Amino acid sequence: MLRTHEAGALRAEHAGQTVTLTGWVARRRDHGGVIFIDLRDASGVAQVVFREGEMAERAHRLRAEFCVKIVGEVSQRPAGNENPDLPTGAIEVLATGLEVLNESAPLPFPLDDHLEVGEETRLKHRYLDLRRSGPAKAMRMRSEVNRVARDVLHRNNFVEIETPTLTRSTPEGARDFVVPARLQPGSWYALPQSPQLFKQLLMVGGLERYYQIARCYRDEDFRADRQPEFTQLDIEMSFVEQDDVIALGEQIIAAIWRETLGVELSLPIPRIAYAEAMARYGSDKPDLRFELELVEMTEYFANTPFRVFKAPYVGAVVMPGGASQPRKQLDAWQDWAKQRGAKGLAYVLVQEDGTLGGPVAKNLSEEERAGLAAAVGAKPGDCVFFAADSAKGGRALLGAARVEIANRLGLIKDGDWKFAWVVDFPLFEATSESDAENVAVGSGSWTALHHAFTSPTPDSIEDFEKDPGSALAYAYDMVCNGFEIGGGSIRIHRADVQQRVFGVMGLSEEEAQEKFGFLLDAFKFGAPPHGGIAYGWDRICMLLTGADSLRDVIAFPKSGGGYDPLTAAPAPITAQQRKEAGVDFKPAPKPDNAAKDPATA
Amino acid sequence: MLRTHEAGALRAEHAGQTVTLTGWVARRRDHGGVIFIDLRDASGVAQVVFREGEMAERAHRLRAEFCVKIVGEVSQRPAGNENPDLPTGAIEVLATGLEVLNESAPLPFPLDDHLEVGEETRLKHRYLDLRRSGPAKAMRMRSEVNRVARDVLHRNNFVEIETPTLTRSTPEGARDFVVPARLQPGSWYALPQSPQLFKQLLMVGGLERYYQIARCYRDEDFRADRQPEFTQLDIEMSFVEQDDVIALGEQIIAAIWRETLGVELSLPIPRIAYAEAMARYGSDKPDLRFELELVEMTEYFANTPFRVFKAPYVGAVVMPGGASQPRKQLDAWQDWAKQRGAKGLAYVLVQEDGTLGGPVAKNLSEEERAGLAAAVGAKPGDCVFFAADSAKGGRALLGAARVEIANRLGLIKDGDWKFAWVVDFPLFEATSESDAENVAVGSGSWTALHHAFTSPTPDSIEDFEKDPGSALAYAYDMVCNGFEIGGGSIRIHRADVQQRVFGVMGLSEEEAQEKFGFLLDAFKFGAPPHGGIAYGWDRICMLLTGADSLRDVIAFPKSGGGYDPLTAAPAPITAQQRKEAGVDFKPAPKPDNAAKDPATA
Repeated sequence: MLRTHEAGALRAEHAGQTVTLTGWVARRRDHGGVIFIDLRDASGVAQVVFREGEMAERAHRLRAEFCVKIVGEVSQRPAGNENPDLPTGAIEVLATGLEVLNESAPLPFPLDDHLEVGEETRLKHRYLDLRRSGPAKAMRMRSEVNRVARDVLHRNNFVEIETPTLTRSTPEGARDFVVPARLQPGSWYALPQSPQLFKQLLMVGGLERYYQIARCYRDEDFRADRQPEFTQLDIEMSFVEQDDVIALGEQIIAAIWRETLGVELSLPIPRIAYAEAMARYGSDKPDLRFELELVEMTEYFANTPFRVFKAPYVGAVVMPGGASQPRKQLDAWQDWAKQRGAKGLAYVLVQEDGTLGGPVAKNLSEEERAGLAAAVGAKPGDCVFFAADSAKGGRALLGAARVEIANRLGLIKDGDWKFAWVVDFPLFEATSESDAENVAVGSGSWTALHHAFTSPTPDSIEDFEKDPGSALAYAYDMVCNGFEIGGGSIRIHRADVQQRVFGVMGLSEEEAQEKFGFLLDAFKFGAPPHGGIAYGWDRICMLLTGADSLRDVIAFPKSGGGYDPLTAAPAPITAQQRKEAGVDFKPAPKPDNAAKDPATA
Repeated sequence: MLRTHEAGALRAEHAGQTVTLTGWVARRRDHGGVIFIDLRDASGVAQVVFREGEMAERAHRLRAEFCVKIVGEVSQRPAGNENPDLPTGAIEVLATGLEVLNESAPLPFPLDDHLEVGEETRLKHRYLDLRRSGPAKAMRMRSEVNRVARDVLHRNNFVEIETPTLTRSTPEGARDFVVPARLQPGSWYALPQSPQLFKQLLMVGGLERYYQIARCYRDEDFRADRQPEFTQLDIEMSFVEQDDVIALGEQIIAAIWRETLGVELSLPIPRIAYAEAMARYGSDKPDLRFELELVEMTEYFANTPFRVFKAPYVGAVVMPGGASQPRKQLDAWQDWAKQRGAKGLAYVLVQEDGTLGGPVAKNLSEEERAGLAAAVGAKPGDCVFFAADSAKGGRALLGAARVEIANRLGLIKDGDWKFAWVVDFPLFEATSESDAENVAVGSGSWTALHHAFTSPTPDSIEDFEKDPGSALAYAYDMVCNGFEIGGGSIRIHRADVQQRVFGVMGLSEEEAQEKFGFLLDAFKFGAPPHGGIAYGWDRICMLLTGADSLRDVIAFPKSGGGYDPLTAAPAPITAQQRKEAGVDFKPAPKPDNAAKDPATA
């Protein structure tokens, strides 16, 4: 090692020792001939003093982020000069030797903890950004999260197994990235959206307990906080029921929160049925750090004279104290709703005297007005927001509104953690209701809500075809503070059930065989009952570090559109690369066609 | 859990307990109405007995690899029926309940430990192959290897960091796999050949100690035992010298051998200079489990009358007792040499009376004949093989011959482990001498022997341009039993040195900036001295498990040509996938070209 000590580890008891340190010049201060630098390495910072004379002379040319090696004597700081905010604040190092290991050009941005520079610039120079304490800490935290999770899994006899990433394109809900196969021109590998099929095959293979911190790939239209490659903690177990996977999942998450944050979670984590979560919170990933539950008012307004409320679903959410919002703020809520694609956000203001204000109130019947506050649980001074729409649309709007209300009212306590399992998911959803960029697996009017390999519950398994919309799945999501951080299910392990599920999704036996034949084949050879879970590792690290973005917990993230500002990937390839990769391969014409080829005629 | 106990964990002390087991029918035996099955789960095997009557009736339909749940009472086996070879051999389970969880179709091959079926068939049904004890054990061993290595690294304050796999194509010695970027049509990502550039950037970023068990990709013409995706333990450290990386590397390998095999390696591992390894063993990854060193005879034959030996290099290796080989075997050696691309393998037989036999002897001068046995260290009864060629070609042939001799004579002891570090590698090799499929980074007559980021040694750093062929690199390979299992180097951390190395390789400043600009830019901001190592994880697991092939330690390996017999990847993609991926994107014609487009004229 080029050094004898780490800068951040020096303490008063080192006083008198001669040490060699290496690191970066974090700050330099000239005090009339004496020069002080803050020397930073991965362990922390120590103050180095260059006394007048030759040493000070040489230190004079040090600039920010020069990489240096310093020999010096550790000395107690003069009384009164200690810095109690710094772990090394009791000492300083009196330099007797200085070697510049590498100079630094002027920085594109100062490496302060509170940075004003744009993210694109930070990512272009990510190697400088990572020298800041926040990003460096996030990397270390993430490493620790891996360690804690693996430790729990090891104690539970899990086997870490790597699954292929050059594999076959299988429809799993999003678009695959594809890779041309040079040695089989015209054929392509796909990068996996998850190890789903392989982990199920490992269960068929009798490994019983598998895990992997796995890189996954989805070629989606990058929304604000998506990455084309992401990481999940991927787990699968044989001979288990839902409760077993849930218990293991809780053990992992509790260990992570305990060992990285010192937070003790109260187990078991409460469970809430999907239908209840949607009804009470308008979301399948409810933020439970505050109340503000949705109230269904469809019945209440069954005979309303107000045309807007003649809808399949009418619901409300109360904003405590919201009646005193100025008109401008109430208008801003309309804009907020419109940005989310809604027509607006109807509201009623409950005045201090109990009467109702706002433009909606006068459209209601007297009876409706009279009972409204009690029905929604509003008190004088509150504002009641309404949505009237399909149940799905109305709940989604109110669910978002309750989060927005909580943020505006500051209802969310810093450092509060609220976990829940959402269970009893529907097995299918109507293709017409399915949002986003799902690549439907089949052509039917139903698609899998989780994925096509999720088992129906015992109650649903015999006749889910009769009423697909009511069938329940053995699926479970872990939510934390309004984020889905993990999800899993008990899988189908019988080929006949899998075929029937495909059937509901409009996938014929031939199509299923073409797309998933190897999995269906495997199920023929005594596949065990199995289930698993996958945790969104980037998301969990983001929550733990208190970061605003997934990008903050990824060493070298992509920015918008999948672009990497550091390497400028993706980039054009050479004509030779293109040729070699076989991208433009055309199959040779068949012999009898060749005979008819005009060029050879 | 569907079971109360693991089958392989049952012992005499469980006698009298009622247990529920799950697993697979490994074997079924009918003994006149009483049926015995070996029930296998991941923990092992237990014998289950179905006594006559209804239970035996139902057990009668069990077939191999049915997945079952069994309730029964643990019972001591009758005296004399114990099986001391089986951990559960003291007991059997008297079944009182049987549930078939899943049936199995007849197997494509029996799941015996000594399997006669072809590898392609095994890989197509890898989920069955993995139920065999050998493959299952290899997976568990590999998981354990990960754990032990991570443990050492954690104790040494390493941070586990994931680096991107959708990145920029950079020439690193082999062909890149490329991935079309749908959101930037015409641009492509590349899958990384290693995290090399990113780990160096992490050092510039001040992380100081990085590791990752990383997936890497090389699009090579698959030789016998290559995989398009493979795994390495990737390590990088700042402020270190070669000895520091070597010491850490030894600590990891020693821990792995100790904890998985119970083998205590003697540290430090001996080092041998590249030049010495080539001279003595004809290989930079010498197998040191046996002697049989090469003897250089160039001087000895300086004035030989034998035309074949008038060569830049003449060397010999002795086969003890080889003089008694029948003519047919000596001919077979010629074939062996020809298969390796040599013209043949000259030999001299030292007869019991000390005279020399074989066709070469009579071409030598009397003086040469007289001193030959002593010069090469041959005893009566030995055979001396010769190579006369360039030093590189001759040594390669003799190096291979010594391994072949050792194998034929059985000189390699089972369970013997011989490690070495090969050090003092040349920095460059002549492009004309560089074998294989290297994609040269520059257009010069020299290319990097390790890779373009390897630092010259202090002795070479000032003037390696003068005599590139003699410059030494701060590079080191770990070899084990004739395999290179790891390699690394101290890296260049100064932009000027990196530029000079690129210069020798014929890479202009502009080309370097185009190809590695982001790394050269990073070096401008106080990059620290750093170095690292990467271990071939598949290879190490292969050695530890005693497997014959890398494929045996990979859960779902590719076979020849990068084909996966299980999923049939790679495969054609749909026209829509191709269109969406932007593979055929053509930039829009420029406005003034468009005006001349005949179609619009």
